[in-house]
This record gives sequence, structure tokens and C-alpha cells, in this order.
Amino acid sequence: MSILVVGSVAFDSIKTPFGEVEEVIGGSATYFSLAASYFSEVSVVAVVGEDFSERHLDLFRLKNIDTRGMKRARGRTFRWKGAYGYDLNEAETLETQLNVFANFKPKIPEDYRQKPFVFLGNIDPDLQRDVLRQVQCPRLVACDTMNYWIHHKLASLQRTLGLVDILIINDAEARQLTAEPNLIKAARKIRDLGPKILVIKRGEYGAVLVSGDCIFTAPAYPLEDVSDPTGAGDSFAGGFVGYLASAGDLSESYLKRAIVFGSVMASFNVEEFGIRRLSSLTFPQIVERFQAFKALTHFEDLNVQAARV
Amino acid sequence: MSILVVGSVAFDSIKTPFGEVEEVIGGSATYFSLAASYFSEVSVVAVVGEDFSERHLDLFRLKNIDTRGMKRARGRTFRWKGAYGYDLNEAETLETQLNVFANFKPKIPEDYRQKPFVFLGNIDPDLQRDVLRQVQCPRLVACDTMNYWIHHKLASLQRTLGLVDILIINDAEARQLTAEPNLIKAARKIRDLGPKILVIKRGEYGAVLVSGDCIFTAPAYPLEDVSDPTGAGDSFAGGFVGYLASAGDLSESYLKRAIVFGSVMASFNVEEFGIRRLSSLTFPQIVERFQAFKALTHFEDLNVQAARV
Repeated sequence: MSILVVGSVAFDSIKTPFGEVEEVIGGSATYFSLAASYFSEVSVVAVVGEDFSERHLDLFRLKNIDTRGMKRARGRTFRWKGAYGYDLNEAETLETQLNVFANFKPKIPEDYRQKPFVFLGNIDPDLQRDVLRQVQCPRLVACDTMNYWIHHKLASLQRTLGLVDILIINDAEARQLTAEPNLIKAARKIRDLGPKILVIKRGEYGAVLVSGDCIFTAPAYPLEDVSDPTGAGDSFAGGFVGYLASAGDLSESYLKRAIVFGSVMASFNVEEFGIRRLSSLTFPQIVERFQAFKALTHFEDLNVQAARV
Repeated sequence: MSILVVGSVAFDSIKTPFGEVEEVIGGSATYFSLAASYFSEVSVVAVVGEDFSERHLDLFRLKNIDTRGMKRARGRTFRWKGAYGYDLNEAETLETQLNVFANFKPKIPEDYRQKPFVFLGNIDPDLQRDVLRQVQCPRLVACDTMNYWIHHKLASLQRTLGLVDILIINDAEARQLTAEPNLIKAARKIRDLGPKILVIKRGEYGAVLVSGDCIFTAPAYPLEDVSDPTGAGDSFAGGFVGYLASAGDLSESYLKRAIVFGSVMASFNVEEFGIRRLSSLTFPQIVERFQAFKALTHFEDLNVQAARV
């Protein structure tokens, strides 16, 4: 099944202890759609500036991503500049230029409105609902958000959450949203707000799925060389939603595999700067890493030979 | 197979957001031996003061733990007082009274010296080597340490590490010991120091095993109510070493299950204050939670119905 994603497309300048890059293509819609493109058809709604060239669009088209919903507005493309320390857990934002993104009003093209899967990237929750007003009964709506919206637009965000099926956020955001330090209790409170399925990303510690009575965890793939964590969360969401859309099934065993595919795509993404690694993957490589997650997490059944009690 | 553990026995006063207790029995050897006692025979070498009564010893004896190596010295038992905030990740130490523990010189009773499994709790690395000089060719030596020894007695700790098979430490300690932020690289450096098997505890994020080419992860069990994290690390070590000793097999599939049993025992331990939960478990409860870890981490094989690429 095919996915509509609405989010940001940006030029990122990134510095980590392992190198730096200037004005490479980034943004939530970019990372999401590249990761999802290995599994499903993806159509992007976003805004770019006059400095966004055909060569840049080709990075999407090469992955068969439908870019007709990416509108070119007058002005410059959104720019973000950030730096990471050795622990790579949190970016320090050095500069944000919203540019054309400041006036982003997502307009969903007519032929995108019946897409069965919708992913709302991390944008203003008012705009997220604006998107949902334009689409027609999608089968599944997944959504991301961030600390900024939790802090500044909580009421609007809560209205959006009442309309989505899956929320994909990080653990600090889950705690902030609910004022609840215990993650399992926080998950219950979030599900009371609307999303029946919750995915909590924990950076280098992996991800947790909470759905019905099911709790499932996947670790982050252990990598010796992490170059750049930018976009890991959106790559995760792309692998997760992308696999679900390809399967067309939201039952528990599919949700679990989707968490693993999300983790797989995030793990590839951080191996190189920007979208370099996501642009150059093959599907067999993805499957190989999926299998590697099995070795990392599965154990054989009980064999207590000398239980005393 | 039977285990010799050398470590601390203490009276702890603990305050968490969920309650507080005064002068309850604690210490690394206590938590370790209680957790391990569900799997194997355990003999403890430790020192206690004149205020340590027969009633206290009964807490061990009830679990068939051999306490003949717990020597009563003149003076008061080691006391520790600590508090935790809502995140429960790190204790703030409010007071430490070493008391009789200040002069602890472990003397291994003659009939303990051929125990096949040895666990060196978190004590001065000089004393850890002192223990190893007294025992006779144990089949396996596992060891814990802490930031204090890494900072103040690095050379001695490195000598100890040259003599142990398994090091069980937390992730911050692994990074501190190697000055390496990447955990997988840190693991490789630690194994170059001696331990062929490394277990890295990550608190609420679970644990990682690194052995040969095998990397294995287990999450922490998701609990809605964590009362008191004191002793979680030693309970983990007790479950881990206890299961290995009961199995008498150190091959990969046993090591993986041991990580899960360690996680099981740690998860029980934090449910109540002090040793209350570890004192009252049944083996079927342990097996039930072991199975729950399977549901938490296992996923079914690949089923990509619509892979595009």
C-alpha cells in the first residue's frame, strides 16, 4: 500500500566528532521517504525553495518517490545547522533558518488524498490536523512530534493525537507529554489521548512498541562506527511505516517486525553522514540486517538443569 | 555447580519517591547470593559487625546459602544511606559508614577453596586478587567493579581483570575504563585486558553480552511500579552466574539465557524495597518471567509481501 508523508525538507550542516558536511539534503520527510521507499510507494508533500534543484529532486526520484507534492516556493529552502558531541545522543542546534518552511501550508494533491497510509512528520500540530482534513479515511495515520510542540502547543497536539492511530516519539517526549517518569505508565496515558499504538524511540537503546496488551522491545543495532545520528528517528519511522504499508497488516506479529525494520533503517542511516547510506542500500542488505537482529535478541528455550527450589 | 561469592553485607537506609526503609539488610554479596540461590549452591565470604544478629543470618540460611564464611568482627556492620529521584537511575549517596568493612581481608575457608564458580563483588581490586590467590583453579571467575576503583586504583584493577573470565559492569563504567564512548569498541578494549566475556548493564535499558563474535542484548523488563533499584546490578549478576553454575555450560546459548535470567532477577528485585522480593520468590515465578522476556523480544521470521526493490 502506498504512503503519503508530510514533513520538512531541508539543507543540513552537521558536525560530529567523526566529520562534518555542509548543506546536505535532510529534513523529516526526506529521511522518512527514503527509508520507506525500500518497502512501499511513497508520495511526499513538502515545501522547498528556489535553491532546491532538479539534481536534489533526483535523489528522491531515483528511489521512485513521488515528488509531485513537493512545492517550490519563492525564497530559500529550510536550513538547519547542528553539532553532536562524542555521546551522539543529542544535537546542539547551532542555527535554524526556517525560510520557505515558515509559511508551509501543506496542500495535498487531489490524487494523494486517498492514500491508505499517512505519516505526519514533526510539524505544527495545527498543520498535522490540516492534512488530516484533506485526506479521505486513511487506513492508518502515524505521527511524530517534538518537545517544542509539547511545550508550546499542547492543546493543539492533544487534538491531533485524538485523530491518529500510531504515535512515534522518543522517551523524553513521552515523559514530557504525560509528566510521568515511568515509561509504561506514560504509554498508557498517551494511549488514552488517542493513539492505540505507541512507539517509543530510545536512541542508542532501541525502541519499544506498546499496542493492546503487547509490549515489544528492539535494541539499537550495535555499531562500532556511528558517523551521524541526524535523521535516525525519521529513518526508523520510515522503515516502520514502510514495512506495515507493504504488509497491509497491523496485527501484532507485523507490528513487531515493523519495529525491527525501523531499527534496521535507523542503524543504516547513522553509519554515514546525511542520506548517503539510505540512498545506496539494497533490499538484500536490509534483510540481512533484519536477520542479524534475530541473533542479537533471540534466545533458546529454558534449560535449567539444576534448579534447586 | 557451587558458587563462592565475596563482597559486602550492609545495612542500607533507602529513600525513593515511592517510600523509604531504615537499616534493611543489603550489600553486594547479599543481593548476589539471594538471586543466585534460586539456581545454585552459594557460599558467602563477607564481614559483618556485632549488630548483625542470628535473625539476619537466617535471611540467608532460609535460602540454603552457606554463611560459614561470614565473619563477625568487633564493631558495627557497614552502613549505606542513599536516595533516588524520580528517574531512579542513579542513587545519591547520603552517608557511608564503612565500619567493620574498612578492615575486610577476605579469608576463604578451606572447604570453599575448590568452588568451581567464583564471583568477586565490587570490592578493592587488591582484595579481589587476594581472593583469587586463595582459591584453586576455579572453572569460572566473574567480577564486578565500580567508578571509584577505575578512578583510584586503575593499575590494580587492570591486574585483576587479567585474571577474570567475565566482567559485569555498567555502561558508564565501561566507557570510563576505556576512555571510549562507543560501547562496542569499549567492549573490545576491555576484552583485551583479560575478560573473554563482558556483560554491560544499562539500568532501565537492559544488558548487553559480548563474547567471542556474539553480541546479545536483553531489555529491562517493563515494570509499571519500580520501588527501589538498590541491588539491581548484584541481583542481575546473581541470576546470571547462578544460572551458568546450575547449567555448568558456558557456551553461547547458555550465556544468552543467563543474561535473561540476570534480567529476570533484577526485575523482581526492584519491585520492592531491599531484599523483600528476592526473599519471597518461587522458581515457577522466575520461569514465568523468563518466558515473558521471550514475548518481549522475539519476533517471527521475515514476511515482506510487497518488497519493491
